[in-house]
Amino acid sequence: MHRLLILSHDENEYRALIEKARLVDLEFATQPTPDVDIVLGEPSRIKAALASLPALIWAQSIWAGVEPLLDSASRRNYTFRVTNARGVFGGLMSEYVIGYLLAHERKIFQRAQAQQMKQWEHSLTGTLRGKTIGLLGVGSIGSEIARTAKFFGMTVRGYTRESETSTQVDVYYHGQDLSEFAKGLDYLVSILPNTAGTRKVVNSDLLSTLPSHAVFINVGRGQTVDESALIEALNQNKIAGAVLDVFEQEPLPKDHPFWTTPNLLMTFHTSAPSLPVDIAKLFIENYKLFIEGKPLKYQVDFERGY
Amino acid sequence: MHRLLILSHDENEYRALIEKARLVDLEFATQPTPDVDIVLGEPSRIKAALASLPALIWAQSIWAGVEPLLDSASRRNYTFRVTNARGVFGGLMSEYVIGYLLAHERKIFQRAQAQQMKQWEHSLTGTLRGKTIGLLGVGSIGSEIARTAKFFGMTVRGYTRESETSTQVDVYYHGQDLSEFAKGLDYLVSILPNTAGTRKVVNSDLLSTLPSHAVFINVGRGQTVDESALIEALNQNKIAGAVLDVFEQEPLPKDHPFWTTPNLLMTFHTSAPSLPVDIAKLFIENYKLFIEGKPLKYQVDFERGY
Repeated sequence: MHRLLILSHDENEYRALIEKARLVDLEFATQPTPDVDIVLGEPSRIKAALASLPALIWAQSIWAGVEPLLDSASRRNYTFRVTNARGVFGGLMSEYVIGYLLAHERKIFQRAQAQQMKQWEHSLTGTLRGKTIGLLGVGSIGSEIARTAKFFGMTVRGYTRESETSTQVDVYYHGQDLSEFAKGLDYLVSILPNTAGTRKVVNSDLLSTLPSHAVFINVGRGQTVDESALIEALNQNKIAGAVLDVFEQEPLPKDHPFWTTPNLLMTFHTSAPSLPVDIAKLFIENYKLFIEGKPLKYQVDFERGY
Repeated sequence: MHRLLILSHDENEYRALIEKARLVDLEFATQPTPDVDIVLGEPSRIKAALASLPALIWAQSIWAGVEPLLDSASRRNYTFRVTNARGVFGGLMSEYVIGYLLAHERKIFQRAQAQQMKQWEHSLTGTLRGKTIGLLGVGSIGSEIARTAKFFGMTVRGYTRESETSTQVDVYYHGQDLSEFAKGLDYLVSILPNTAGTRKVVNSDLLSTLPSHAVFINVGRGQTVDESALIEALNQNKIAGAVLDVFEQEPLPKDHPFWTTPNLLMTFHTSAPSLPVDIAKLFIENYKLFIEGKPLKYQVDFERGY
């Protein structure tokens, strides 16, 4: 018999969804107890409960990012596996990215402001067709964004460490120098996780290489952006705009300069919510592999950091 | 030898594009003269020039809507063919519709307003997946919108007089009663042309049948909407919002109540511009059919009105 502890403010919803699947040999715990061997929840709450979970052998994160479980001090002592949420965010992320790309091309804010002033604002609209998008990171989410961009007739560049798995990417780039990747992009989208290798990848060098009409979108992690460099690029109109879903510190402190930076839209970590219906399905699938002794899906590689 | 008169503020661009195609037996006229037999231009400017064009045998409109050329008095005397622009607007119209659908689902305006007030607005986002869109009119544009909606996982209903040509539509509806078509829609999109049969199709009956969370988008013609009924529906929150690209009178008069109606976005007839590069291509294709004596593409049926 296995004992599952759920650590999420959606605990009741998760429990109902998992009970419905009638999984064998699974009981639910309501407190961190010494016999709990599986935990499903938010990485920070899992981390906080670790001391009370001596029998833990598997932690399923409900989020994609598992930074709290990755800090090097605790990692060394882990005797359990960590799996994260993947493969469920691509659709929502694509809607987010395309939504903000179209808001830019169609001048959605500009026309709404004109409407306030009773102005017949019929300047020519832009289009996604023929534009070039560059994706920093092409995993399951990047691949889905690439597929959507291709649907709208865009050219897709992909920057990855080495993988070239998505066939939706027109050209791949690797290596330390991102200038060839960035040159001439209309849109730069970062889907990078927060790892030792991705910190401040979006820096003043990269931002200076972008054309002045380019727009930067970050749906990955705030730590991958040099926030000061981005503020400078926006203030000096080195790029046309930015859309940020993630930040170095969340929620964003009230005195952060982002609140008043021009041509910046912020969406407060809402781009792809972990919906219990999606994550429960993923947990159920993984639990079946777990009791059969098979490799789990989306196991986190502590060396890579994701 | 044929003589072509171009009546558009993009005349030079059109001429350059057409000259590049080196069409046989074609000369350019710069004024309406008795020997002009082909005209390419805006319907209202063509209409105004008709009296000076006794030899006209073919008028190619650069727009989809050709109402000025359709009024019954002049129509009876037409001895020339009218072709309009079709098949080139589907992509732009799809970008427009999906852009505003996503702006609604992702709360793009709501989050921008929160940003102004330094609020971390992380309420749950919506998604297009699983939503239902109803298309009033499914020609080449509607079919392309349907294809895009299906790409995003939406259910597509189509209302047409009788045609069921697009395979992207999940269920078709016909006939006078639109209630079954409208019931339960998340989005209603009108792509209807302005004809005797389409005037005020979007009336208080239809708007009352929509759920209160529904959003109406009009990219067809203003005359197909009962504007007073729409204002009432928005004022009384009978529907959640509307996005209008077209109006009974354009530009919209300064004293029109639309300017101050809540939950209404206006885009000032910009949804799908006639780009010379697209329309010239269409003209060139049609000219080749014309000199071979073959049927022209997109010939307007005066009885149907489009």
